[in-house]
Amino acid sequence: MNFADRLIASCREADSVSVVGLDPHWEMLPESFKRDLPDEPEERAQTVADRVGEFCRGIIEVAADCAPAVKPQIAFYEQLGWRGMRLYADLARYAKEAGLLVIGDIKRGDIGSTATAYANAHLAPDAKSPLRTAPFEVDAVTVNAYMGADAVMPFKRAVEDAGKGMFILVRTSNPAAAELQLADCGGRPLWNRVADLAARLGADSIGACGYSSVGAVIGATDPVSLKQARGVMPNAPFLIPGYGAQGGGAAELAPAFDKDGIGSVVNSSRGILFAFRSEPWKSQFGEAGWKDAARAALLEMNAELNRARRAGKA
Amino acid sequence: MNFADRLIASCREADSVSVVGLDPHWEMLPESFKRDLPDEPEERAQTVADRVGEFCRGIIEVAADCAPAVKPQIAFYEQLGWRGMRLYADLARYAKEAGLLVIGDIKRGDIGSTATAYANAHLAPDAKSPLRTAPFEVDAVTVNAYMGADAVMPFKRAVEDAGKGMFILVRTSNPAAAELQLADCGGRPLWNRVADLAARLGADSIGACGYSSVGAVIGATDPVSLKQARGVMPNAPFLIPGYGAQGGGAAELAPAFDKDGIGSVVNSSRGILFAFRSEPWKSQFGEAGWKDAARAALLEMNAELNRARRAGKA
Repeated sequence: MNFADRLIASCREADSVSVVGLDPHWEMLPESFKRDLPDEPEERAQTVADRVGEFCRGIIEVAADCAPAVKPQIAFYEQLGWRGMRLYADLARYAKEAGLLVIGDIKRGDIGSTATAYANAHLAPDAKSPLRTAPFEVDAVTVNAYMGADAVMPFKRAVEDAGKGMFILVRTSNPAAAELQLADCGGRPLWNRVADLAARLGADSIGACGYSSVGAVIGATDPVSLKQARGVMPNAPFLIPGYGAQGGGAAELAPAFDKDGIGSVVNSSRGILFAFRSEPWKSQFGEAGWKDAARAALLEMNAELNRARRAGKA
Repeated sequence: MNFADRLIASCREADSVSVVGLDPHWEMLPESFKRDLPDEPEERAQTVADRVGEFCRGIIEVAADCAPAVKPQIAFYEQLGWRGMRLYADLARYAKEAGLLVIGDIKRGDIGSTATAYANAHLAPDAKSPLRTAPFEVDAVTVNAYMGADAVMPFKRAVEDAGKGMFILVRTSNPAAAELQLADCGGRPLWNRVADLAARLGADSIGACGYSSVGAVIGATDPVSLKQARGVMPNAPFLIPGYGAQGGGAAELAPAFDKDGIGSVVNSSRGILFAFRSEPWKSQFGEAGWKDAARAALLEMNAELNRARRAGKA
């Protein structure tokens, strides 16, 4: 089954378009997780990985019945070394078993033979790979296209052959994003060219739902950018980061959804994982209630986004 | 000591500007390495990692006294799962102990907090990191700046605080690179804007040698592009891939070197690692002589590049 169809089915089942970003910032974990680390380096590294794993499994349990997908940001596992990478793979399996789709936020991109190795690692091995399964297998990944189509075609192979998905990094919302992405290229911002590439690559991977398994990361949550992105990429599902902690709100997202209330998923990481650190959840649940706080924050996000989806419908 | 100074000292000591790319394409290894893999998945994965490790250690031994640095391409280790990532870290240590600098070809880039996690993983941990050393520590990394300065500043922190280096992906030589990198932005190709960013970031990290610890990946090996790149980034050391297997030759590289024959290092991966597959080395050494073939190919590359360096001097 086409990834876009699976994503939309998962959204409908959970009545949610909220993707939970598994970005375990160490310093933001509850204090009980950070206490009494061993000094011996190997033992310390394993203890840290175990505790991050315990926290992330708790979040996956919270999300299992009220979100379509989780999105682990691989950098937070990579900084824990090979044990962190083993944890990343374990968490991807754990989330899958819980019925969630997994979007690996890896933002990889390189020349063809190297991109093939990344696709082997994260989506599905090709015929030349010595391993028979992808060691970090997820349902979809984010990719960086600065090197052009070469850098993303090997992922497309896995989309076609293995029912996987990919989201091309098109427009991001970080403060310095404008520097290159908004550069004027013949009257259009550069990101429009990347959007052209995403639309072209996705044109032959459109599922029954009308959306492609080649999506786009669109971090700009102003209605004008969203409409412009939709114009260039009519069939691309959008993965919209930046909800909550990075500043975006639900009301502005209405144009991200079509008349059926689909077409985009929205990611929140810190706003859910560390909800126990902010009011009203902090007073209500305290640090020991981090799981309940995460669930409350996720349900609130679902409600807000479902209102935005209905606004798109109207 | 500033990374650029260390790189140049290492080039002088080895009388070489050749960087050996550790890209262990599984299908290109000598047949004896690929034989009789176990079927059981965990055992198979460990066997594959062990054999790739044996091959790469052989190449590091070959390069130790006649190259300044090795450049492992992390994708080839990532596709072997967490055991491959453990191997990547082991090989980085092995190369360091052999006296080589290590450039991690990771091409990471993401928003600030995520890029910080990558810098923690690959260069040096910051104060908030639970680990006290970088688990995948190398001397320098390659980074992708599509997201703007945010995506590279955390690596710059490690350049300043820990004497590390970084190479920003500016211009690549793969067939589809032109699609975005040559997009006309106000009369200049887009890659010039990325080059501006690299020059700006590197301006305060210039060592005694006159070069910065913030370098640039410049894959276009035509003399015109090289001169243009040098014009925009007078102090950036260039990391030039694409020598040999990807098609670039030594003669065209003369403009990459200054009057002292420094300013760039040149990478070859397949041309050295798999020299035993091509003439004249194939007939001379055969598959069993893969290490001797790699050494012969590396010494030939050194001689060719040293001629180009003298041409730059003239």
